[in-house]
Amino acid sequence: MTTATELLQRLAGRAVGVVGLGLIGGSLGLDLRKQGIAVHGWTHRQVTAERALARGLVDQASVHPQVLHGCALVLLALPLDQLVSPPPQLLEGLPGDALVMDMGSVKGPVLASMQHRLPRFVACHPMAGTANAGVEAGVAGLFAGRPWVITPSGQEDPEDLALARALGIALGATVLECDAASHDQAVALISHMPVLVSAALLHNAASGGAAALAQALASSGFADTTRIGGGNPQLGTLMARCNQDAVLAALESYQQQLEHLRFLVLSKDWQVLQEKLSAAQALRPDFL
Amino acid sequence: MTTATELLQRLAGRAVGVVGLGLIGGSLGLDLRKQGIAVHGWTHRQVTAERALARGLVDQASVHPQVLHGCALVLLALPLDQLVSPPPQLLEGLPGDALVMDMGSVKGPVLASMQHRLPRFVACHPMAGTANAGVEAGVAGLFAGRPWVITPSGQEDPEDLALARALGIALGATVLECDAASHDQAVALISHMPVLVSAALLHNAASGGAAALAQALASSGFADTTRIGGGNPQLGTLMARCNQDAVLAALESYQQQLEHLRFLVLSKDWQVLQEKLSAAQALRPDFL
Repeated sequence: MTTATELLQRLAGRAVGVVGLGLIGGSLGLDLRKQGIAVHGWTHRQVTAERALARGLVDQASVHPQVLHGCALVLLALPLDQLVSPPPQLLEGLPGDALVMDMGSVKGPVLASMQHRLPRFVACHPMAGTANAGVEAGVAGLFAGRPWVITPSGQEDPEDLALARALGIALGATVLECDAASHDQAVALISHMPVLVSAALLHNAASGGAAALAQALASSGFADTTRIGGGNPQLGTLMARCNQDAVLAALESYQQQLEHLRFLVLSKDWQVLQEKLSAAQALRPDFL
Repeated sequence: MTTATELLQRLAGRAVGVVGLGLIGGSLGLDLRKQGIAVHGWTHRQVTAERALARGLVDQASVHPQVLHGCALVLLALPLDQLVSPPPQLLEGLPGDALVMDMGSVKGPVLASMQHRLPRFVACHPMAGTANAGVEAGVAGLFAGRPWVITPSGQEDPEDLALARALGIALGATVLECDAASHDQAVALISHMPVLVSAALLHNAASGGAAALAQALASSGFADTTRIGGGNPQLGTLMARCNQDAVLAALESYQQQLEHLRFLVLSKDWQVLQEKLSAAQALRPDFL
């Protein structure tokens, strides 16, 4: 993990607040505490607060927002819908002088909902995860080597953007910056829309007369292709809901790509089909 | 690996011929030789014959079909197109008294092309593989625990079917039987059509304005979903070509499934979308 010198200087001895102590919030807490930074957690349920303390995710944890008092930086590690439509008690509980950053996987709608409501806000998407959720899910080193995407709107204070970058660097992540719309388009292409593509494969394989045989014969290729389609349905729905425009655009262009391949099979144009599959093979390493 | 007693009895000391010494042929040779069965390989190129001998894939190898003389069983481990449209020299080179089995991944067209041309033929699809090809690709134990699908037409001699089953059992595979059309439908659903679905994801992600950012942000989910779409283009094309009807049918029903999901996103029917994603999640374990 990269040195946290700049982050420590910018925090000037003050604590970092984390709202939500699931996979992302808990992992943030573990890594920050390792660097000698005090972490204060605000969570919804008392049992989560106690478990987060017991696991060493945070130094202090509470169901009351007062726990965030004095924090220089507050990280919102909450489900997307709470970022897009923040409950009043969330907004009221945030310390007015802190920089607030969200950790959500869609950026345009979060910026639109948060930036005019908070004096200091930076939108960020740490692209890391595991299949786990909840207070037991946080792990050390989750962000190391993963993209840490900051999507400035242009209204941020340069010092706040510098703190957002220093946090990503301190976590060992690769800091990237882009506008929110480009981010949302990109994640629709590589993550949100593929969930639907993958889920449709499962429904299709299970719906025909050959379903039982398909189950018996399915191998690792089908398992890989359907992994994200068989993932958390709440999360998949939230991503489609909070990134609707980009997901629809990605889905429509995808349907055209697939229809072109169908046309090649239908018209027995095996030469062009093979060229398309060769091109796909050549494209893939750029995405790994 | 299960005992080979019945196979040894049925072969009565005679050798097994393998035509084609790539991943499947080489792996068959390794496993059969381990059980004390003599394996004779017929291959196209002298350098392959020599390398197959050096690797211990076969006891004898030659570019001449005479090497198959005396074999009780001959396994065709050849590319699909050579099974669907067998070259005359292949058919002429096969010993007239041997049971011939193919190892191709499409069964209807192979049965149609082979059964009336050979006195004794059983169609079989061992559903095992790795990403490797060629004479270096064969590995021991490739078929263990994997489906060994026999697709009888009803014209086979029961003794020949028994030998085909005994071979699968001796290799440690799970022997299944079904009609060729059902097999071809099932593999279209779980393997051949998903290649196109997966390849279209790569083309789509690489074609828009957000392509460079998509490349930078793509993670393990995208890597998994596109693995088979980024696979061997010759193989993907052959599967579509040799299983055209079933692939088209699977693709068309797939497009309807996907269009339904698009409609749910478009109409903001998040409740039904979440139900569909929950159903997909529940379906997946049946395919693992």
